[in-house]
Amino acid sequence: MPDHQTTHFQEELTELKERLLVMGGLAEERLGTAIRALVGRDASLIERVATGDEPLNVLHIEVDERCFKLLALRQPVAVDLRAIVAAVKINTDLERVGDLCVNIAEACRRYLQYPPVKELVDIPKMATIAEQMLRDALDAYVRQDVDLAESVLRQDDALDALKTLVFRDLLDHMLKDAATIEPALDLILISRHLERIGDHATNVAEDVIFIVSARDVRHHPLPNAH
Amino acid sequence: MPDHQTTHFQEELTELKERLLVMGGLAEERLGTAIRALVGRDASLIERVATGDEPLNVLHIEVDERCFKLLALRQPVAVDLRAIVAAVKINTDLERVGDLCVNIAEACRRYLQYPPVKELVDIPKMATIAEQMLRDALDAYVRQDVDLAESVLRQDDALDALKTLVFRDLLDHMLKDAATIEPALDLILISRHLERIGDHATNVAEDVIFIVSARDVRHHPLPNAH
Repeated sequence: MPDHQTTHFQEELTELKERLLVMGGLAEERLGTAIRALVGRDASLIERVATGDEPLNVLHIEVDERCFKLLALRQPVAVDLRAIVAAVKINTDLERVGDLCVNIAEACRRYLQYPPVKELVDIPKMATIAEQMLRDALDAYVRQDVDLAESVLRQDDALDALKTLVFRDLLDHMLKDAATIEPALDLILISRHLERIGDHATNVAEDVIFIVSARDVRHHPLPNAH
Repeated sequence: MPDHQTTHFQEELTELKERLLVMGGLAEERLGTAIRALVGRDASLIERVATGDEPLNVLHIEVDERCFKLLALRQPVAVDLRAIVAAVKINTDLERVGDLCVNIAEACRRYLQYPPVKELVDIPKMATIAEQMLRDALDAYVRQDVDLAESVLRQDDALDALKTLVFRDLLDHMLKDAATIEPALDLILISRHLERIGDHATNVAEDVIFIVSARDVRHHPLPNAH
């Protein structure tokens, strides 16, 4: 490519990255709002999350088109090609996080119809980890930071362990007091949605490792991950 | 590209498609086995599904590498580029279907510890739809059949409706008889896993529509889909 084309290509790559970060910011904000709505039992916040997925969906299509055009017109190789293929995947993951926030809001909506289950067990803790994972995965992407990306993989183990605890706690509530069956069930679903948000953050982290090191860590857990 | 290179490229594309079909076949088989294990209360079949994800994981990495090499070395454009970008996504979807089969097997394992919930409500029906969606989505991919792909999108609405029915039925069992709480909970989780398998089949169908018509139908439901 002539020099001015290379510069233009690098600008387009930077723009692509910026659009993904906007998506990541939106996804984080939606997750934060959903959890505040749950903790604060705030019906209007819940509706905002349940009906607010459009901006992420619009960005999802835009980013896909950007990736496609870059592949078609610029025919990138090596690290640039890896960055664009990773962007296609990260784009999908972030869009799914938005969908999961809708799912959380829908479960919250049902949950609010019942008296609260004691202290929401460890759901807020799960949400805090999922938010942190999302933030770290995106930071790792911006800074191409493999160590930070690997820390996301380890946080996912903590999130999974917490999910199992939450499940047992809520099952216990249901067995002891049938009046908690419906709200506890919704909390179990919410904990599963949070687990999946963690999985998407993990996917993003794995993509970062792939971009930077051309190393595929999927299906190969880190030696110190367990 | 010189003619012999074009031919070779087309062969590589065909090979890529064949590998995706092998993955699809494995994913279908795993889903079928998981449901037979649930219906037949067959612990050894369940273990086979729970521990049998390796071949899909190996193919997942192989297909990703094939896509990456084709993009890097062949610099495809237009319909070929769309086919490869779609393959990256379909590959992810099929790998996730394998993960969900593991999740189903794990829930089955717990479920078998309890007396059965009456007739498994509509879970086998959900499984039949999910299997059909997966099969149709892959057939649509092979034959580049947009009509068949669109039928998958409509089947997904049926699956979602059934999921809501299943949830209500199982909740009813739990409220009426506390002894069903634990097994019913596992069936609810299984129904969610089946719903997600349907979502992945839907993603594949959307990718087929994108390959063939360069039309992005995501976030734009079909006029006759509801």
